[in-house]
Amino acid sequence: MNDDSTFSSFENRYDSDEIVTANRPPLNIVLYEPEIAANTGAVGRTCVGLGAKLWLIEPLGFQIDDRKLKRAGLDYWTYLDWEIVPNWTTLKKRLTETNHVDESELRLFYFSKSAKRSYDDIQYQLGDAFVFGAESRGLPTSFIADDERALRIPIRSQIRSLNLSVSVAITAFEARRQLRF
Amino acid sequence: MNDDSTFSSFENRYDSDEIVTANRPPLNIVLYEPEIAANTGAVGRTCVGLGAKLWLIEPLGFQIDDRKLKRAGLDYWTYLDWEIVPNWTTLKKRLTETNHVDESELRLFYFSKSAKRSYDDIQYQLGDAFVFGAESRGLPTSFIADDERALRIPIRSQIRSLNLSVSVAITAFEARRQLRF
Repeated sequence: MNDDSTFSSFENRYDSDEIVTANRPPLNIVLYEPEIAANTGAVGRTCVGLGAKLWLIEPLGFQIDDRKLKRAGLDYWTYLDWEIVPNWTTLKKRLTETNHVDESELRLFYFSKSAKRSYDDIQYQLGDAFVFGAESRGLPTSFIADDERALRIPIRSQIRSLNLSVSVAITAFEARRQLRF
Repeated sequence: MNDDSTFSSFENRYDSDEIVTANRPPLNIVLYEPEIAANTGAVGRTCVGLGAKLWLIEPLGFQIDDRKLKRAGLDYWTYLDWEIVPNWTTLKKRLTETNHVDESELRLFYFSKSAKRSYDDIQYQLGDAFVFGAESRGLPTSFIADDERALRIPIRSQIRSLNLSVSVAITAFEARRQLRF
């Protein structure tokens, strides 16, 4: 990638030489202000398994550095295509660049237990981006106002929500099932 | 249930009065000799979300008791339909009882990274049982010799496997997608 200038202010991009950079990821997983390192680690493992790209929108509730990743046994992290972005504007700019599309062609889906439409009611497309909110707060309500792009995973009412890494896996593997990437 | 005699030797069945016992669970999740309490906890949460029944085959790598569940914040555990069994023979006996079928009608699927057939290549049926091995060892190879019933989740080679709770969620929600339970 020749657009490292976008990230010149970020120190915590892990060992970029080793990152396997798919020019155009089949799927993009976006964690909005993730709070718990272990969840992001588990999501990263799923992303490597799928060849999906992981995006983290700041602020993060933890620090990512080489030492901590090694200590946590996240040896797969070196294979992960991932990027930290400071805000939504940069996320969308970078998604258009990595997907080679205009912003109007970007398809972002917002996952929330408050959404009406089920995740398996969608025909996914290569390059789609799945956005998940912070563990404790979810996504801002303004993001899930768009009924077409706000999706939920149907669950019984006895649990408030599924674990973040579980939610990512269920939805991302449904996209893989449809698209066979 | 009137067959508590089967489990008279097990002390660690949590607060059975509060368990929501579906007479015939739409799906059965079986963990074979699970080692890590947090994984079983996460699988339990997914099972509550789906209304699936969780079966644990001994020995377990941890103890389940009221105090530990409360401390781990597993408040949903009281809604979980779950059972500990000492071995495969008892598992199959109990599955036939709870599913109201003969043993020949039971459908057990064994999940392993060594299997050839993909989990999304199956038409699931209500009452199916999904069996997952111990975190560190997987299932005994004899269990996955049956190509028809041994299933894998397709992943790229850079990770050895997915997290156990993630694997359960991906496959169980595929069954839910098909069967709409």
